[in-house]
Amino acid sequence: MATTDSIEQLNQKLLAFAQQRDWEQFHSPKNLAMALAGETGELLEHFQWLSQQQSYALDAEKKQAVALEMADIFIYLIRLSERLDIDLIDAANQKITINQQRYPHEKVKGDARRTEEYK
Amino acid sequence: MATTDSIEQLNQKLLAFAQQRDWEQFHSPKNLAMALAGETGELLEHFQWLSQQQSYALDAEKKQAVALEMADIFIYLIRLSERLDIDLIDAANQKITINQQRYPHEKVKGDARRTEEYK
Amino acid sequence: MATTDSIEQLNQKLLAFAQQRDWEQFHSPKNLAMALAGETGELLEHFQWLSQQQSYALDAEKKQAVALEMADIFIYLIRLSERLDIDLIDAANQKITINQQRYPHEKVKGDARRTEEYK
Amino acid sequence: MATTDSIEQLNQKLLAFAQQRDWEQFHSPKNLAMALAGETGELLEHFQWLSQQQSYALDAEKKQAVALEMADIFIYLIRLSERLDIDLIDAANQKITINQQRYPHEKVKGDARRTEEYK
Repeated sequence: MATTDSIEQLNQKLLAFAQQRDWEQFHSPKNLAMALAGETGELLEHFQWLSQQQSYALDAEKKQAVALEMADIFIYLIRLSERLDIDLIDAANQKITINQQRYPHEKVKGDARRTEEYK
Repeated sequence: MATTDSIEQLNQKLLAFAQQRDWEQFHSPKNLAMALAGETGELLEHFQWLSQQQSYALDAEKKQAVALEMADIFIYLIRLSERLDIDLIDAANQKITINQQRYPHEKVKGDARRTEEYK
Repeated sequence: MATTDSIEQLNQKLLAFAQQRDWEQFHSPKNLAMALAGETGELLEHFQWLSQQQSYALDAEKKQAVALEMADIFIYLIRLSERLDIDLIDAANQKITINQQRYPHEKVKGDARRTEEYK
Repeated sequence: MATTDSIEQLNQKLLAFAQQRDWEQFHSPKNLAMALAGETGELLEHFQWLSQQQSYALDAEKKQAVALEMADIFIYLIRLSERLDIDLIDAANQKITINQQRYPHEKVKGDARRTEEYK
């Protein structure tokens, strides 16, 4: 990935942030997975009592709060990928290829049942 | 964000994927937040019985499985950002700026207590 | 809590189960919290693409699957309470008392905004 | 379950709490699963930077905070079981029976690999 790419730039910034604070000692993959899940819980809290319709139409303040929760998730995802030497973009492209084979569009059109229910 | 950027390329690919399957009807922000959290649960399961040390040294098969769970989280994060018109890179940069002010490195060096415990 | 109580009976059964398998070494509070969250992710997956209406009307097979995910969450919650010597029933009663003061029914009737939004 | 049982008593109390606030409209199984997951995220946050050893030895203030997060999870689990007419105690006993067959103690002693890894 070129260093001009947005994710790699974030990665470098986050690594420096952790190093300056001597926080790498806390950033084991196990701990980062937990931190990512903690932030995911905070994201859910913003949506839990909303209807699906309402979840599209957040007011400005709530949208900003949601954006920052998503940022937290993204940040821990990047930190985790750095610790495990996983390329997020590659992994996402691999997963999309798998999904294209698992869910051929002519077969699943308009149907979102869970993966295992297609078996 | 330039369309040559890796995230924007993934975003376009994922949007086309959902549209071809008529899955946009299921992709309300509320539902996508749930799906993201479901994948986060799967990520945790890979780490739950490992020591922190072990979590650094995944064998090839487990590392690949972890990479694909991270891909799932990333994919839903991108889908959610598209639905809500939130720029993930901008949001992450905003959050890093907030964190730099909240956790000045000279004050928190080597200490990872939770945010609210600094009050 | 009397040992005739259903939770205490489950607690004893689960403790014996872990001891027989020499699994107490894995059941640190940190690990049990992760395992609980992993099961919560599985619960979410059953509901993520359903409308709220549909989530009331699960077919028999799905209802049974949901019941077993809830059982997993309950099991890890009981294990965690045992490890930390926390009385779940007491804690729930304490929390209900707090909620009764925080959300006086004459004030919040029909309104489910998040706690911090009442400030 | 006899009404003297601790869980059934909590269930009645929580049902009355929701009815008095006209909150049943928000308590679809889908929403309650999300709320449960949100609380699980808060539980994780207490443990994410601790070592396993530290997670056993919470100070009094943190232990109380953890107890109240566990109470929140328990409360939503009971609410969800009420909405779906699922008996939590029965489900837990069923799951323990399944686990006893899936993990015979002579085979898995001291080994906590994930379920699917035994296949």
